[in-house]
Amino acid sequence: MAVKLALVAEEADVSLPTVSKVLNARPDVAKATRERVTQVLERHGYSIRTRPRTATGLIDVRIVNLDGPWSETVVRGAAAAARRYEKEIVLTVDPDPDDCDGWVRHALSRGTDGLLSVVAVPSEPARAALTEAGVPFVAVDPLHRAPEGTLSISATNFQGAFDATRHLIDLGHRRITTITGPVDQDNGIARLAGYQAAMMQAGLPLDDDLIVRARYGVEEGYHAVCALLRRDARPTGIFAASDDTALGAIRALREHGLRVPADVSVIGFDDVPYSRWNDPPLTTVSQPLTEMGAAAVDIIIGALQGRSAAVHTELSTRLVVRQSTAAPAVER
Amino acid sequence: MAVKLALVAEEADVSLPTVSKVLNARPDVAKATRERVTQVLERHGYSIRTRPRTATGLIDVRIVNLDGPWSETVVRGAAAAARRYEKEIVLTVDPDPDDCDGWVRHALSRGTDGLLSVVAVPSEPARAALTEAGVPFVAVDPLHRAPEGTLSISATNFQGAFDATRHLIDLGHRRITTITGPVDQDNGIARLAGYQAAMMQAGLPLDDDLIVRARYGVEEGYHAVCALLRRDARPTGIFAASDDTALGAIRALREHGLRVPADVSVIGFDDVPYSRWNDPPLTTVSQPLTEMGAAAVDIIIGALQGRSAAVHTELSTRLVVRQSTAAPAVER
Repeated sequence: MAVKLALVAEEADVSLPTVSKVLNARPDVAKATRERVTQVLERHGYSIRTRPRTATGLIDVRIVNLDGPWSETVVRGAAAAARRYEKEIVLTVDPDPDDCDGWVRHALSRGTDGLLSVVAVPSEPARAALTEAGVPFVAVDPLHRAPEGTLSISATNFQGAFDATRHLIDLGHRRITTITGPVDQDNGIARLAGYQAAMMQAGLPLDDDLIVRARYGVEEGYHAVCALLRRDARPTGIFAASDDTALGAIRALREHGLRVPADVSVIGFDDVPYSRWNDPPLTTVSQPLTEMGAAAVDIIIGALQGRSAAVHTELSTRLVVRQSTAAPAVER
Repeated sequence: MAVKLALVAEEADVSLPTVSKVLNARPDVAKATRERVTQVLERHGYSIRTRPRTATGLIDVRIVNLDGPWSETVVRGAAAAARRYEKEIVLTVDPDPDDCDGWVRHALSRGTDGLLSVVAVPSEPARAALTEAGVPFVAVDPLHRAPEGTLSISATNFQGAFDATRHLIDLGHRRITTITGPVDQDNGIARLAGYQAAMMQAGLPLDDDLIVRARYGVEEGYHAVCALLRRDARPTGIFAASDDTALGAIRALREHGLRVPADVSVIGFDDVPYSRWNDPPLTTVSQPLTEMGAAAVDIIIGALQGRSAAVHTELSTRLVVRQSTAAPAVER
């Protein structure tokens, strides 16, 4: 199915989204182009809709059953945007971060105006079904960038991590560790890369001992610091790839008799609601989560109106300086 | 409309839910009763459905746009339960904690199998429309108990607050303060009453100076403690009516040079995810939020199958002892 649509796009010399628009009678295609694509589609056995599918007023949102407020903040932003367009959110909470094809097929058979998935991206056959039906799909913070122009939105993970590390460097730190997120995920890769870029820009050595590979989470941060403190070179600053990780790191530092920030500075990533109430209030990088949810809905509505969106959009993070970072202690 | 249905119930000598079942062709009504109610309904101008409304597979969930994970945890429980019944959640996030009539009417006109609202309860005409349509409605943690048998579910606020205060008394505390929640809300009233009951049971004086009236929130807890410390009698233990309040209280105590729990014990209420990662880990009363969301969906499904539910259900809280409470410091 997907192969056929791709062939149509190639023969008609247009993009896949344009083929989908013509197939589903959506606006915003030049008359001559529409005629040409129609001919190619019909030659491949497709029937062109005479009018767009009737709007259902529903937008399907799928989140993974994660602990913590991350996904739900995205949903809140999506729900507020949906309200403005007089659409309603049908929410699916699914523990499986990978398989969302069943969700796609169910939504298509029930009828939906668009799909938004946090983290999970449908497989290729499911994406083809969406394209063929002309139903927009947007992935928010996908684990991996999907090929073939799947629309996605995330935060500027690379830039945010760069800014976090730069903040420690500007305070005077030289021995800066990062506790990474999962480096089999795009956001984890980007944050590690941001740290490395800031270190390199400042001419600081990228010592393997300074990188602790972990996954996001409080326990992960805790164990990462325990491991770190068994190594020779103690850092004066730590960039933890998530706030949860930072919280666990701070706990472990305290248990080893180290004060934050007096002995070790810690900066996180996310700006979850609790971060400013932590003791000490956590310096971190804020992700624009409600804006990401809202922007995903804006993209869906735009696509329904024939507007093309950038394939991948990144919304800017923001450094939030609180009290868990300070100049390194003077070395005796 | 509601008056007519209430009259029908009275004339037919049955409950309002039974009238609704007959009107909407729902099962689980004795044959003779159904015939009698049918006659009364028809005399009042109602047409009885010959079969129940076709299921839409949708359950409408409305939450208030609150900060923090409370409402969303309830939604998560509801979504998991809905999945088990192969229903889908249509989620509405609305900043207004009072007016949900528009939401009710919209759901009824679109078609829905049931409604679940966190905090907000529809007004009487909207409830009458729900009863007439035979669409179940359940309020989760309503601000005020709704009359006329509106189904609701909450946590055992009174018992939980009692247990929290009892915990401090068992540790040896005598001068115990409470920082209340809003006493114009059922949960606030119940928690204050639980505190008072535990104090009275232990024969401890209920000093007005020991009660600080506030609303839920970190800033509220902070200012409450600042006010408290300006009074004469410093408490050795504080029962804060929410974890957010407790966090603010701890921050204010620290700023006044007081250690928790060494100088003052603090216990909260909710067990939000960050409570165990706080420094110190917060002793609190856990609310079964996911269970409340799931139970609300179970009640809706049961009602659709003709099963009557208790008008109000309370799910048990659970004392969670961590590190923010201890025996009072020995007095010199």
